[in-house]
Amino acid sequence: MALIVQKYGGTSVGDIDRIKNVARRVARTKDAGHDVVVVVSAMAGETDRLINLAKSLADLPDEREMDLLMSSGERVSAALLAIALKAMGYKARSFTGRQAGFITDDAHTKARIKRIEAEPILESLKRGEIPIVAGFQGIAEETGDVTTLGRGGSDTTAVALAAAIKADVCEIYTDVPGVFTADPRIVPEAKKLDKVCFEEMLEMASLGAKVLQVRSVEIGMKYNVPIHVRSSLSDEEGTMIVPFEKDMEEVLVSAVAHDKNQARVTVVGVPDRPGIAAAIFKPVAEANINVDMIVQNVSHEGLTDVSFTVAKTELLKAVKVIEDVVKKIGAKGYTTEEKIAKVSIVGVGMRSHPGVAAKMFETLAKEGINILMISTSEIKISCVIEEKYTELAVRALHEAFIG
Amino acid sequence: MALIVQKYGGTSVGDIDRIKNVARRVARTKDAGHDVVVVVSAMAGETDRLINLAKSLADLPDEREMDLLMSSGERVSAALLAIALKAMGYKARSFTGRQAGFITDDAHTKARIKRIEAEPILESLKRGEIPIVAGFQGIAEETGDVTTLGRGGSDTTAVALAAAIKADVCEIYTDVPGVFTADPRIVPEAKKLDKVCFEEMLEMASLGAKVLQVRSVEIGMKYNVPIHVRSSLSDEEGTMIVPFEKDMEEVLVSAVAHDKNQARVTVVGVPDRPGIAAAIFKPVAEANINVDMIVQNVSHEGLTDVSFTVAKTELLKAVKVIEDVVKKIGAKGYTTEEKIAKVSIVGVGMRSHPGVAAKMFETLAKEGINILMISTSEIKISCVIEEKYTELAVRALHEAFIG
Repeated sequence: MALIVQKYGGTSVGDIDRIKNVARRVARTKDAGHDVVVVVSAMAGETDRLINLAKSLADLPDEREMDLLMSSGERVSAALLAIALKAMGYKARSFTGRQAGFITDDAHTKARIKRIEAEPILESLKRGEIPIVAGFQGIAEETGDVTTLGRGGSDTTAVALAAAIKADVCEIYTDVPGVFTADPRIVPEAKKLDKVCFEEMLEMASLGAKVLQVRSVEIGMKYNVPIHVRSSLSDEEGTMIVPFEKDMEEVLVSAVAHDKNQARVTVVGVPDRPGIAAAIFKPVAEANINVDMIVQNVSHEGLTDVSFTVAKTELLKAVKVIEDVVKKIGAKGYTTEEKIAKVSIVGVGMRSHPGVAAKMFETLAKEGINILMISTSEIKISCVIEEKYTELAVRALHEAFIG
Repeated sequence: MALIVQKYGGTSVGDIDRIKNVARRVARTKDAGHDVVVVVSAMAGETDRLINLAKSLADLPDEREMDLLMSSGERVSAALLAIALKAMGYKARSFTGRQAGFITDDAHTKARIKRIEAEPILESLKRGEIPIVAGFQGIAEETGDVTTLGRGGSDTTAVALAAAIKADVCEIYTDVPGVFTADPRIVPEAKKLDKVCFEEMLEMASLGAKVLQVRSVEIGMKYNVPIHVRSSLSDEEGTMIVPFEKDMEEVLVSAVAHDKNQARVTVVGVPDRPGIAAAIFKPVAEANINVDMIVQNVSHEGLTDVSFTVAKTELLKAVKVIEDVVKKIGAKGYTTEEKIAKVSIVGVGMRSHPGVAAKMFETLAKEGINILMISTSEIKISCVIEEKYTELAVRALHEAFIG
């Protein structure tokens, strides 16, 4: 008998039939003698519907209000799944983020979990119930306001809860059968990976392979929670995300990832003096905007250009901050570019193999693709390119490294 | 400068343009120097959408889960209105039922307010904000679970909050210009009433004039909160609901009400012995089902029939209870009838005028309408009739009593 956390994404609970399907799957796990805790996302499309309503009322809707607004979708899913399971004769019980004990900071729309007071969940399990937790949400410790954990936050809810209650495994059910070597819609030859290590998955998640929210992988790695990414529509085994194992090193590149949700801001004509980077990026961080890559050009006559990338969805917010920064530091101005994308190769094998970067640049050059920005880590290399080349680049890199 | 509670119903916040319209109206009240607290319903159709989702998963969805499900609609409206007001430059702040301090019992789907801990609202007003409260919901004191106050519960939220913060008036904005002498869709000659006393409004509300939830009127009467029912689409004065005034007595019948949401249950062949009524109605009450009329026929050979009416929406629940009761008391069986309606005349003037009932029965008889059940109070007379005669009966009674 195992303790299993199952997380069902938006498409898995996208309509009544799919909710029934999820209920049957949960029931089967329970019938097999396991203890199950379920975490649900909002029904597919619901979060976007709510965001669009808000956006038609304000360009930059207040974030505290956005959290109250968006948290409703997961609550609906949790209640509906509990209703379905009870109708099937199972003891189920919904939990909001607050009821499940998710205490967060007050960084609205991207709150961080401070701790999980999971006793109510454990007690529910003891009573033989199936707790159904509304994902993606918590409650700010100081204010008591509803918070959300950012796009894809239900993954984090599931993995963090699995860590808190010491679950044997956290199953992430989605509409794809697992983690692939590349997006199969772009690369038909892409293969499903049976196993990926946390480090690689972390890079892939942050590079835009939309399988898992980055933070959920961090938490899984930190607390050693095995994560099983699999399809809610079949019984096929998916991809296990596990600690690094020695034999993984043989693979040079595990996957090619891409991310079109990228925008670039360039601050032009920045006086090149110490402290200038901090003067730019401190206000950006204070506005809670995640900066991805940063590139600073060589200085000419005491002036330099500083470019950085943010998620497209945060560009408007970033521009608001940068307008002030430009005035404050006496820069000449700023430009923005939305038609960019990031392509990346990821693999723990890169650690011990030089020459991978050169092969990547060469592969892109052969296709006539210009590289706009580069960023590397021990186990990944990312290039920002023009958005229109995304598919071409992904296919070429897959062909060159994975075949 | 007054302290005003404004409640906006589902049609008033039914889409983005209407929410903007509500925001402008709230802003205008604020600009005029008043303190405003806003209570909102779910966007029109949203509650029904959620109920239908639940009904497609279970015939009798669990009520605790229904409350979590249904409470989401008002939270969405509150967040959206706060976003709209902030975008217009006003300080607005959403409050869930919990945050606004609505502590209830745990009678899910029809919880009663135990008390309102309104300090957060008062503090918000002190900060110059416009608090936007999600109507219809609270939190159960014992369990911390989300509760709802029953259909139309946002009216109760508004009036109870107005009482708690000692507001000067509670304005109920709806899609009709006020309270009419009859439903204008049935009786084109129906007139808007400038003033109605609490007692009359109470009868009208409980008789199915869907303007206000009954409990909101009870609370208004108890705490003497003037209620102003008016349209959110015009500036026209609506209907003031006020304590009884002497000159109201001159009007014999103020309004004709009707209610099609009625169903009748008859327990057949009940052994006629003391305590039998309690044996039938105690389990019904314990199941939290509101019984409206009760009629017991004269006994024949020690057996009698007991009929009662409930809301159509509660018939299924009532039948479940009655099946047990029939076995327990040794009755012959039960029948149900859904195609019935209740028509009523209401007026404080009836207190001192005999003969009103006779005139009502005569009016219905003249149209060939059979009366199935009768119920009277000091200021109203109700008749249950076949549903198909509803409009005919309402028109005839309006013609006879109001003209």
